[in-house]
This record gives sequence, structure tokens and C-alpha cells, in this order.
Amino acid sequence: MKINGISYRSLWRPSDDDRSIRIFDQTRFPWNVEILELRDADAVAEAITTMQVRGAPLIGAVAAYGLVFALQDDASDEALDKAAAFLIATRPTAINLRWAIERMVAHLKAVPADERVAAGYAEADAICDEDVQTNEAIGRHGLELIREIWERKGKQGQVNLLTHCNAGWIATVDWGTALAPIYMAHDEGIPVHVWVDETRPRNQGSLLTAWELGSHGVPHTVIADNAGGHYMQAGRVDMVIVGTDRVTAQGDVANKIGTYLKALAAHDNNVPFWVALPSSTIDWRVRDGVKDIPIEERSADEVLFMTGLDSNGEAGRVRIAPLNSPAANPAFDVTPARLMTGLITERGRCDASEAGLQSLFPEQTKAH
Amino acid sequence: MKINGISYRSLWRPSDDDRSIRIFDQTRFPWNVEILELRDADAVAEAITTMQVRGAPLIGAVAAYGLVFALQDDASDEALDKAAAFLIATRPTAINLRWAIERMVAHLKAVPADERVAAGYAEADAICDEDVQTNEAIGRHGLELIREIWERKGKQGQVNLLTHCNAGWIATVDWGTALAPIYMAHDEGIPVHVWVDETRPRNQGSLLTAWELGSHGVPHTVIADNAGGHYMQAGRVDMVIVGTDRVTAQGDVANKIGTYLKALAAHDNNVPFWVALPSSTIDWRVRDGVKDIPIEERSADEVLFMTGLDSNGEAGRVRIAPLNSPAANPAFDVTPARLMTGLITERGRCDASEAGLQSLFPEQTKAH
Repeated sequence: MKINGISYRSLWRPSDDDRSIRIFDQTRFPWNVEILELRDADAVAEAITTMQVRGAPLIGAVAAYGLVFALQDDASDEALDKAAAFLIATRPTAINLRWAIERMVAHLKAVPADERVAAGYAEADAICDEDVQTNEAIGRHGLELIREIWERKGKQGQVNLLTHCNAGWIATVDWGTALAPIYMAHDEGIPVHVWVDETRPRNQGSLLTAWELGSHGVPHTVIADNAGGHYMQAGRVDMVIVGTDRVTAQGDVANKIGTYLKALAAHDNNVPFWVALPSSTIDWRVRDGVKDIPIEERSADEVLFMTGLDSNGEAGRVRIAPLNSPAANPAFDVTPARLMTGLITERGRCDASEAGLQSLFPEQTKAH
Repeated sequence: MKINGISYRSLWRPSDDDRSIRIFDQTRFPWNVEILELRDADAVAEAITTMQVRGAPLIGAVAAYGLVFALQDDASDEALDKAAAFLIATRPTAINLRWAIERMVAHLKAVPADERVAAGYAEADAICDEDVQTNEAIGRHGLELIREIWERKGKQGQVNLLTHCNAGWIATVDWGTALAPIYMAHDEGIPVHVWVDETRPRNQGSLLTAWELGSHGVPHTVIADNAGGHYMQAGRVDMVIVGTDRVTAQGDVANKIGTYLKALAAHDNNVPFWVALPSSTIDWRVRDGVKDIPIEERSADEVLFMTGLDSNGEAGRVRIAPLNSPAANPAFDVTPARLMTGLITERGRCDASEAGLQSLFPEQTKAH
């Protein structure tokens, strides 16, 4: 998508023979657009842990290159496994990270050690291109839902969507997941409006989603995370659409903390609740999301402080609780499948259920 | 309750012949404890509108004195009605404001104009003393619930409560409503722990509730508003207790935006959800809360900025959304009665229903 008229992906290699990648430092968004160069596995792990890179699909793609960097000095099986474990450990909840690394490891173990770096770059490049195509497909399958709502409203007013966190183009290599249908609907002339949950504690909604949508010209309104239930009661939300960091074999969804509350409100008000995801996000080995998905606990400082632009126009932060007050910071929660209307994948839409996922991915579920 | 070892109410008159009141400027909490002197109706209205005074019971008590100030030059029926309308208009949602003003007007109209100022101060003083006694009674009725949970847990571990916004002593003249049982349980030796929703956009939870509880030595943890559903799923919340700005005759509850989401999560996880309120908060003329309670919309800046303590130790704010992004700010939401376990009033506990309220307030419901 575009920034100031120039098209970008979230991740790229300057040239085919370059042994580095470029990403945006997303901790600087939206106030600064800064490009970082990463050329070793430690830098990649640091970028993931500190959330300069975030968004489940983008984490997976960046980590894939991180693995290739680790092999540049030693491409043995041992080095491969060690680098894989190192990178997987950076963020525990998102499954795309594990999926991308496992795909890379499987691919590279089938190749002689002295060919692994070249093959690794090619495979990581493929992961990126496939992410873009996948998200474009997700966009088309989600666009149909928005068109249906627009028809049902007699093509009057606007289609109001609510989203949480950032599942837009900067969470992926391009297009986004939850936001892809929104961009497509907007570009096709359907008047869409997006309620953007600010998404405390890190405010990926107000800092990233609002910025992405604004840069593309999509009407939106930033709201506190507390507000969405009220707007749904008031009939001002036609559809909730979010991304996800992990989906289980029975359709339970892990996503940014607070998603579960929005699903409860949608269910209570008969508002359709859809989750957009590439199939790399599905963890076929896990069934019960509430029991079995590890929820990352992050630093209390993310809650105790709020980061933004200070009155001098510099990035700054304010403390929002007394000095002696502790805080806790679970980064994700799990929405049980029963609360969802359905899932939007690159292969199409399905119920959030084992049968639903089986209908789209028969080969996967037979294997487990 | 105490600040640095000195006992305070939230509102007082320095002496019986003083024609002014003292309050805390709550917009300065928790970083500064500043006492304001108010001596005219305009200053009272300003203090209410800018939220130097907040918390439904406290707003009512302060407004009562504001009415008396207005009568000092002209105590005619006309002046009384005009001042009443002026003060009621400052904040539309909380019913205690209307209740207090209507009580004052009824009382003063029965008194000759030249006696109204003296009678007014006496009646406003009585409103304050009754608020303290009322909240003490609410505390006792809520304390029984906490004792029951402690017994049920075999007196092991701690009793975990979750609260939203600030319904503590600084929201009232003293004791608080939702927090009163918590203070009593703590003082009696029951190990309580409070999950404190920060309560965006104004953060009354992280700035006021955390400060109150910390000052009294009550263990607590500040969390993002997004987190409570996860903790309830994880079995780490034994009870949710909140205050309210208005309760309808059928038990629907208006409270700080986001309360409805916590009620949904409590209901989904079989966590008891109780609302603490003095009977002055009940609006007997309204039945359907979702349809009939007006929800105040406040400035978008409260969402677009976050106020706290900057790195220089001064009160400051940071912008948390791009300059071109609009925001919306509904200050309250309505929780339907069906989601609640019950109400805690000064007369005891009851179901959140018309029958429940009738059982405690037979005289009120016969009149409507």
C-alpha cells in the first residue's frame, strides 16, 4: 500500500544479491517513517522482541530471513535447528512464526548445506510473495460480506465496521488481513467507516490502524476500547472484523487482548463477528484455545505508561498510575469459536468450527 | 478516608458560618493533592463540567451547595428554579445530580425566601452526612458477599475483585460505593486484591482508584480495560463490583463506558457481577436503560490524548492518534439487568429487576 504516494511492502530486499532486508521500525509509527536494515539473526530477534516488527504474518516472514542470516557462517543441521529454536522463542503466541520457521527448516534440510543460504533466500522470498497473494484472496472473500451489507442497507448511509489492534498492511507483507476487505470495498466505492479500537496498552489501533486507514483515505473514528459495546447496542456497527495470532483446529481464536470482549458484545447484539486469517495462522495441533494457547505476559510498563507524541512534537510517554501501583499485561486473549460468525481465509469463508475448517482444508485435518 | 494519615471527606465546609465549600481538584489526582474553595454557583458548575468534581454522589452533594450559593443574592422561587436548571444541565447522565437538586428545591420552596440560605446549608449538610451513612451501609451489605467468597475459598489465597472507573471514597462524600465493601474487608483482615481497570479515556481507574486503594494499603493491580475478560476466563476474578451513575426501575445500569463489556465477560464466565449504589441513584421514572438514558458525549481530545505525569514529573499529555484522525467519546454505557447478579443498596441487596427493587423500596415503586 502507499505512504505519501509511494508504494511499499512492509518488508523487502533491496536487490536479489543483497544479504539484508529492509523493514519499517513500527515503534516509530505514526510520527516517523523510518526504514531499518537487518542483516543478522540477533538483529532480527531483537526487532521482533521489541516489536519494531509486529503483526503475525510479518513476524513469520521476517523470521524466515533471520534464519537465513544465521546460516551464513554455518549452515549445518545443528546450526539450523539452533537458529530455529532461537527465533521461535522471540514471541510465544503467534503461530505464523513457528509455521514460517518450520517451513524453512523442512525446505532447507532437504538441500545440501552449501546451497542453503541461496535456497533460504528464495524460500523466504516465496513466503513473502505468497503472503501478498494470500491476503489479496482474503480481501476478496471478505469484500463479499461488505457488499452484502451494503446491499442489505439499500446502498444508503455507510457500512460501519469495527476492528481491534492492527491487522492491516503493516502487520503483513502487504494488503493486510482484516483490513484487506476494507481497502477493497473503499477502493470500489462502497462508503465504509471504521471504528478503530485504540487497543491499549500499546495502542496499535490508534497509532497504526488509524494511520494506515487515514493514509489510504478510509473514513475512521478512533475510540477507547471501552466504547465498542455501546456502539453495537446503538446499532452503529454492521460488522466486526479482526485478525488473529493463532486459530485452533476447532476455531478458537487468539488475538490482541480485548478481542474476546468485542466478540461477547457482537454476540449479544447480533452483530456479525468475522476473523480474517491466512491458513498459516491455524495451529492444527491445538483444539481448546482457552486451555492450550500460551498467553504472552509483557512488561508492566506498557500499561503504566502511555507512549505518544508530546507537546514538543517528540515521541514521549506519560505515567498513568501512581508510582507504587503494580500493573499486569497479558498481551492476548482467546475468543471461543461459539462467539464467532465465521473465519475468512485465502480459500474462502467457513464456520468457526472443526467442520468449517475441514471443509476448506480437508488435507490438513486428515493429517491430525 | 485517609491521605497521608489525615482523615478527609471529599467535600466539607470549613465552619458552620462559612459560605463556601472545600473540595479536592480531582483533575490533579494522583500527582497533586490540591484543595479548592468554591463560593458561587458558576464556580460549582465549572467544577462539575470540567470534572474537578466527579463521581455521581459527590456531584449531587456539591451541586446542592451550588444551589445555596445561587440563592445568596436572590432566594425567590424564580431564582431557585433557574439555579436548579442551570446546575442540572452540567452533566446529563448521573441521576444523583437531579435527585439532590430536586430534594433541595422541594425543601426550600416550603421555607420562606429569607430563610432559604440557612435552611439550604442545613439541608446540603444533611445530604453529605446521609451520603456517608448510606455508603457505610452499602459497605456492610457488600462485605457479606466478600466474606462468603472467602469462606467458600476455604480462607486460602485471596479474594480477587475487579472494578471499573472510580466508585471509591473520592467519588462520594466518604467511604465510596463499590469500594466501601473492599475497604471494610481489607480492614477486617480478609486478603483482598483488586484488578483495577485503567478506564480509558480519562483513566479514573489507574489515576484515582489505584491511588485510593494504594493510600489505604489495599493490594491491587492496574490492567488495561481489554484484560478483564481474559482474567475472568482464567478463574482469577471472584467478583466484579462497580458503581453506577443511574439505575432504572427495572434494574438497568448506566455506568462508565466499558462496564457493559465487563458484565458480558462476567456473565460468560459465571463470575458474580454486583453494582453498588445509594438509592438516590435510582431513576424510578425510567425503565429501559438502553433506550431511555441519555449518554453524554465528551470531547474527542479525551480519546486523542492521554494525560499523566511526564518525564519531568509534571502533568502532561501525549497524543495517541495521527493528527488527521477523528475520535468519538461516549462517556457511559448501559448494562441490561439480565447480565447482573444483583444490586447492593443502603437497605440491602436485591436482584437487578423491578421485583428486586420493589422488595427493598416498596414505597417508591407504588408511587410510579
